[in-house]
Amino acid sequence: MESQASMAPAPRALPYYVAFSQLLGLTVVAMTGAWLGLYRGGIAWESALQFNVHPLCMVIGLVFLQGDALLVYRVFRNEAKRTTKILHGLLHVFAFIIALVGLVAVFDYHRKKGYPDLYSLHSWCGILVFVLYLVQWLVGFSFFLFPGASFSLRIRYRPQHVFFGAAIFLLSVGAALLGLKEALLFKLGTEYSMFEPEGVLANVLGLLLAGFAVAVLYILTRSDWKRPPQAEEQALSMDFKTLTEGDSPSSQ
Amino acid sequence: MESQASMAPAPRALPYYVAFSQLLGLTVVAMTGAWLGLYRGGIAWESALQFNVHPLCMVIGLVFLQGDALLVYRVFRNEAKRTTKILHGLLHVFAFIIALVGLVAVFDYHRKKGYPDLYSLHSWCGILVFVLYLVQWLVGFSFFLFPGASFSLRIRYRPQHVFFGAAIFLLSVGAALLGLKEALLFKLGTEYSMFEPEGVLANVLGLLLAGFAVAVLYILTRSDWKRPPQAEEQALSMDFKTLTEGDSPSSQ
Repeated sequence: MESQASMAPAPRALPYYVAFSQLLGLTVVAMTGAWLGLYRGGIAWESALQFNVHPLCMVIGLVFLQGDALLVYRVFRNEAKRTTKILHGLLHVFAFIIALVGLVAVFDYHRKKGYPDLYSLHSWCGILVFVLYLVQWLVGFSFFLFPGASFSLRIRYRPQHVFFGAAIFLLSVGAALLGLKEALLFKLGTEYSMFEPEGVLANVLGLLLAGFAVAVLYILTRSDWKRPPQAEEQALSMDFKTLTEGDSPSSQ
Repeated sequence: MESQASMAPAPRALPYYVAFSQLLGLTVVAMTGAWLGLYRGGIAWESALQFNVHPLCMVIGLVFLQGDALLVYRVFRNEAKRTTKILHGLLHVFAFIIALVGLVAVFDYHRKKGYPDLYSLHSWCGILVFVLYLVQWLVGFSFFLFPGASFSLRIRYRPQHVFFGAAIFLLSVGAALLGLKEALLFKLGTEYSMFEPEGVLANVLGLLLAGFAVAVLYILTRSDWKRPPQAEEQALSMDFKTLTEGDSPSSQ
């Protein structure tokens, strides 16, 4: 498959799909800001508006930036592998820091108001995502950047890293949808069923969130859009294949 | 990739992963039943309990059966392709019929109670899933079963069918989570934050729903678990490759 990818012509449609995903992602961020500004009084740290920091940070960090970090290997196809890897890791660090601010905001807001923590499905999913995200980053960093695992271990771990990266991203979007729904039902109650403008705006935002996830996943999973291995990687991979061809039945 | 797969040893771990996914899926169905029985008064068509038909049917049809329909090609690896294909299509038909009953139940319940329809994010996602599911089935049926498209068209459409099948499944699980959350907030309100047993049970159910989706997706995407092409399919695919190798730049 890898050699096939390196011979494939440059994917002409890819830039359009990436542009579309970015348009969707930025619309989601803008619309979250618009929702909070128009219907929730805007954002501040030292007031009741502190809660609003939470959804905005989570959408920017754990949805938009996390999604973009996954696309790095599709977008930067001809840069050195190490540069792309560092960019991928850094985007995840930014996403994590922004999400951490969002997490502190909601816990701090709950503490000041005397609200209980971590009782809802949204919060359970959210905390799970947060822990898994940190673990995935630490394991990925130690396998692929520092200290770095052996070539054979990396080859084995890579598909797991890719799968769980995508799964954590999807779970993040799921948690965001649950949070959006929670915020709507808490405030609107039965007014939600009267097609209040806030409800309609938030529903559209929810569909766009799901659309962004589908767009990122589509770009990520198209096999002919995978990053072609560069000359030196391919040589290494060939050597490795020759060396290990004897014990292939042990791999499954 | 295909020739590699046909030479690969039978995946020894696959049955354990499939068994685990089935255990998760059946637990989700049983727990939905338990939730409705213990905290919502059970199920009936001709009373206020008609609503409860909706979540149960959706979890059985659009979560459990839809997920299992996706796994058919991994589980039945050595049966004739056509038999597996018919089973895949039939499972989706069962899933669709059960989901249709669930859909009728909620619309009928709303009508009797005078509640408005289709105002919430859950309902928007749900209707979207339903329409996409039907379209995907019809297009899949006409390409792969009757009347059937040309070999080259099938080869082009197959990856799209697989991707959108997985995406619709994920969106179904997302819609189920939103519905669960809605049902909890409508009934429990602020009691939800007091760790009421119903809330805790439903949160666990939500996590298991997400876990089932991840398990199905993992089995589906592991490249070494893909169904190996059988002798006659491989011969066809080789012929096709030889025939079309001249115009490969047109494919992207």
